[in-house]
Amino acid sequence: MSTIGGLGEFGLISRLTRRLPQGPAVELGPGDDAAVVAAPDGRTVATTDLLVEGRHFRRDWSGPYDIGIKAAAQNLADVVAMGAAPTALLIGLAIPVDTAVEWAERLYDGLADECTRAGASVVGGDVVGASEEITIAVTALGDLGGRPPLTRSGARPGDLVAVRGRIGYSAAGLELLASGRDEPAELVEAHRRPQPPYEAGEEARAAGATALMDVSDGLLQDLGHIASASGVRIDITRSDVPVPGLLGSAGLDHVLTGGEDHAFAATFPEDAVLPPSWTVLGRVAEGHGVLVDGRPYERGGWDHFRA
Amino acid sequence: MSTIGGLGEFGLISRLTRRLPQGPAVELGPGDDAAVVAAPDGRTVATTDLLVEGRHFRRDWSGPYDIGIKAAAQNLADVVAMGAAPTALLIGLAIPVDTAVEWAERLYDGLADECTRAGASVVGGDVVGASEEITIAVTALGDLGGRPPLTRSGARPGDLVAVRGRIGYSAAGLELLASGRDEPAELVEAHRRPQPPYEAGEEARAAGATALMDVSDGLLQDLGHIASASGVRIDITRSDVPVPGLLGSAGLDHVLTGGEDHAFAATFPEDAVLPPSWTVLGRVAEGHGVLVDGRPYERGGWDHFRA
Repeated sequence: MSTIGGLGEFGLISRLTRRLPQGPAVELGPGDDAAVVAAPDGRTVATTDLLVEGRHFRRDWSGPYDIGIKAAAQNLADVVAMGAAPTALLIGLAIPVDTAVEWAERLYDGLADECTRAGASVVGGDVVGASEEITIAVTALGDLGGRPPLTRSGARPGDLVAVRGRIGYSAAGLELLASGRDEPAELVEAHRRPQPPYEAGEEARAAGATALMDVSDGLLQDLGHIASASGVRIDITRSDVPVPGLLGSAGLDHVLTGGEDHAFAATFPEDAVLPPSWTVLGRVAEGHGVLVDGRPYERGGWDHFRA
Repeated sequence: MSTIGGLGEFGLISRLTRRLPQGPAVELGPGDDAAVVAAPDGRTVATTDLLVEGRHFRRDWSGPYDIGIKAAAQNLADVVAMGAAPTALLIGLAIPVDTAVEWAERLYDGLADECTRAGASVVGGDVVGASEEITIAVTALGDLGGRPPLTRSGARPGDLVAVRGRIGYSAAGLELLASGRDEPAELVEAHRRPQPPYEAGEEARAAGATALMDVSDGLLQDLGHIASASGVRIDITRSDVPVPGLLGSAGLDHVLTGGEDHAFAATFPEDAVLPPSWTVLGRVAEGHGVLVDGRPYERGGWDHFRA
């Protein structure tokens, strides 16, 4: 087995960058001190996340390709959640030197494929040795196309609250893996490979969204960020929350508090016409916080320091 | 002592972002799914680096403020090495939950102050719990001001090779710390807080530089990257290499192979007029590799997987 340590830093970088297709937004890709990426509207959207082994992924539960998909998806979703089109990803990888080169290659295949799905390219990065855990730092860039960003702070009393994409699947899949099961496969796969509906950003814009974000920490917690940033209250109607039977008996909990699906939540003026892919499950009101059927919901979301 | 775990993810983020001044290039700073940064020339320069505790810094040798300076400086220098002006930094921080909040605050003070020195702002990031080691992921963005990037691939036979900034100081300082000493203070401080001369980018452009990079892994190794990318050989004249007496008996080694000072190396047409802050120490020729007085130099540079 060929290991990363045997290959050395520059050998590994060469092996990895070879696997990365470069899209039209890339003016200068990997290999120099920095990349150069098109930012046609004179601004760039930028966001960064860290994924730490044991906390955000486990090598016995997810393969390297899955982890690449997930690492890319959660950052690309953050760009889309601003109402922007993803253009580029930069990857920092800290990895034990006894890891197989193929593991890193499959990770990069996942990163590259998810980028392609979102219209972006992996344009650069850094690889360093680590003692035990793998850490993946992902930065995503995007372009707003001359339009204002869709922030969390634009929700107004009277607005509709709606969601787009699978919610609760990843948490349900994680629970299965934690109990040693891998069926239903759809849930386990949803945990391994989130599928953010990237078209949600343009759909939300077209329907006049007043606020948009991706659901990464849990629906109620993330709606709480919109409520807080907008200075409003959000009222969820429990009977309007879609809970697929597949999610099992804890389905409602998974939908309301499960993170990592990278679906999208948005608020819209009350006369907005939403595509059928969006589900309205509440209203914006005056006040603060998030209520379900008029009361605070019991279970909390996901806090990386307390979980 | 207040710890990061006690404060929780969102409490910590709030404490840290409060310390970050936002410059004129920041259209939307920390707090949403992503930041929005001006990219006036329709492109953005982007680079990322990981710093892993025990490998790139030690908490017993450097304080958090030092580490912040260093983490920012090495990425800002990469932007300047493209001939661009730094605009923004994004920080990913994986940190054990039993770390004092003040440690993280001082780290961010260092990041913010070095950003200010280079004309940039910390616009966003992520904090996550880690089991033992601190990992800092830094992404830097920059603007080229409508000019082409200064890459590593433009060196031509006949060009002059010149450097700008302290070289060898950081390696000498590291050697002192490793042997339990902290004098001369200038060397130890140079290791703790590199001082890239950010004005070198504009100086190099004004003098017609054909290639530019920052010296991060060791002068000879980094010149090797220019030689390789440009398809040329670089000849260094040993008697033209400035070796300050302060560096001691291993001075030449430190200058030629020591990394992490983040000085700048460039090639210029042979009739270029260089500011006195630049030192010419060699020539570009046909061929490949880097020679010192016509021969390969013995000691190697810095490979993060092999060192």
